[in-house]
Amino acid sequence: MDAGEYIKSRAGRVEEEVYSRLPEEPKEVYGMLKEYISRGGKRIRPVLALASCSACGGREEDAMPFAAAIEMFHNFTLIHDDIEDSSPMRRGRPTLHMEYGVPIAINSGDALYNLVWDLLAKEVGGERFREGAGILIRSFKAVAEGQGIELNWYCENRFDVGEEEYLRMVGGKTAALIGASCEIGAYCAGAEGMRGPMMEFGESIGLAFQIKDDVLNLTADPSKYRKKIGEDIDEGKRSMIIIHLLASLEPGARGKVVGALGKKEKSGGEIEEIIGLAKEHGSIKYASDYAERLVRKAKGSLGAVENAEGRRLMESLADYIVNREK
Amino acid sequence: MDAGEYIKSRAGRVEEEVYSRLPEEPKEVYGMLKEYISRGGKRIRPVLALASCSACGGREEDAMPFAAAIEMFHNFTLIHDDIEDSSPMRRGRPTLHMEYGVPIAINSGDALYNLVWDLLAKEVGGERFREGAGILIRSFKAVAEGQGIELNWYCENRFDVGEEEYLRMVGGKTAALIGASCEIGAYCAGAEGMRGPMMEFGESIGLAFQIKDDVLNLTADPSKYRKKIGEDIDEGKRSMIIIHLLASLEPGARGKVVGALGKKEKSGGEIEEIIGLAKEHGSIKYASDYAERLVRKAKGSLGAVENAEGRRLMESLADYIVNREK
Repeated sequence: MDAGEYIKSRAGRVEEEVYSRLPEEPKEVYGMLKEYISRGGKRIRPVLALASCSACGGREEDAMPFAAAIEMFHNFTLIHDDIEDSSPMRRGRPTLHMEYGVPIAINSGDALYNLVWDLLAKEVGGERFREGAGILIRSFKAVAEGQGIELNWYCENRFDVGEEEYLRMVGGKTAALIGASCEIGAYCAGAEGMRGPMMEFGESIGLAFQIKDDVLNLTADPSKYRKKIGEDIDEGKRSMIIIHLLASLEPGARGKVVGALGKKEKSGGEIEEIIGLAKEHGSIKYASDYAERLVRKAKGSLGAVENAEGRRLMESLADYIVNREK
Repeated sequence: MDAGEYIKSRAGRVEEEVYSRLPEEPKEVYGMLKEYISRGGKRIRPVLALASCSACGGREEDAMPFAAAIEMFHNFTLIHDDIEDSSPMRRGRPTLHMEYGVPIAINSGDALYNLVWDLLAKEVGGERFREGAGILIRSFKAVAEGQGIELNWYCENRFDVGEEEYLRMVGGKTAALIGASCEIGAYCAGAEGMRGPMMEFGESIGLAFQIKDDVLNLTADPSKYRKKIGEDIDEGKRSMIIIHLLASLEPGARGKVVGALGKKEKSGGEIEEIIGLAKEHGSIKYASDYAERLVRKAKGSLGAVENAEGRRLMESLADYIVNREK
């Protein structure tokens, strides 16, 4: 089975598990969550948890409660992030706060996060709950910390963000949960020694995933890409590309780009000009190469996976997740 | 020790425990939480958890991790509720979203909720964690459900709310967490048979607390009261008093009151007129009597507390919490 097929089949099982955990009543709280989660998404985090469990010699179903909890947590963060970023659309439909207003969307996100712990407290026994919860909670904290760091850049209109600070932010906001997904798989397989390597694998592909996402946003084929090309620049996002570009420019040119990025409304010409500069100064290639190195590093973490088939599965998932065209 | 002194001394210990759980870094996420929590509050929920544990024959410190977790959860809900209700002030200072903006306030609330689980996963062992988490999570769900029901009344501009629906809302939003605080105390004391009675005690005083709060909002001595008299009417709140009043009025008069309540801006005269009608139709007395009955019912749930001193402590806490003047 290739990575795409594997993801699709396991995603279906995760979705069934998640739906079974959503209460019917009160409808005004939970009804919208069912619709929201059913909009789709690749479910890469829970699928990685199942795959990692299997690659470490466990049964996929042993990781299912944690996998479903991770997907629920991820959707909770999307609901709140969309409010925080004022995003109007999510997966082809209005974001929850656009459809129901900010108050109800905040509360529904909170209700979904409650369900993460409801599931775990019900389904995972004793010491295993505590240990597994510890793995998850470390990543949940990192997600909020990463998001808080990024929000602060916007609020304080900071463009002097360095690469290290950027990696710390993405390491929290994106990579920590993917790392925890892989680690929890090893934990559920009872493969204590594999927890560290699997976490490193997940964190590396998590970082690579985000950096590639940023590259794609500026270079994708518009006929295949779901978002608007250059949207990140329109939103003034501090990506590895922008950080590299700003560091490569002379003070005068840098000031001009910072000025353009900080503006609320940007013309198509301004966005194209910044993309052009990023190409010219090698910033897109720099980020792309960085992501490739991370994928190689991730695969290197799989050396301790004894089962060759399991290792190939994890490798193919890494390639699939990082090499997207949309 | 009288109830006020007891609350004060135990609140101090809970605060120490809570502060010790707030990470130092990143400051942009956790710094504001420390300031927010240190603004005060009576800490009645965690103090009830400690008192209930002691009354059921346990040691107060055995309930401390859960007590601190409950106070942290409560503060998280305040941060998000204030955004949802567009409240400008909290405990004499601007609400977090007024001070830092909505995005950062949402995220800091989420970060605080993460810390609730961080504390529990670290401090409470094995099966106890799972069982105790189960008690908490049921109440956490109820809080979001109650809040969702109330938000819906506002969004759909509904004034046809009946008493039963009102009690379900407050039962979730306010009483469930107070019930869980008392139940967790019994649980931590190892007094399985006392979990039900203590939960009932807490839920009854939780309801009574909210109903008295609504009475106080219309009848308090302005020189002692911290809020504006009649603020609830200004905000169009569906309280037991308003529900009773609307049910007591003829259709014409009811339509007029509903019209006034639904208006964004209300004059002082309109607010006073509604308070006058509530007095005239016995709605304030009705709510006040209802709360008194709940307090008697709560005390009735304490029959199974064998320790007379413990029972007196719980009774005095009930009186203290419900009979406030501010």
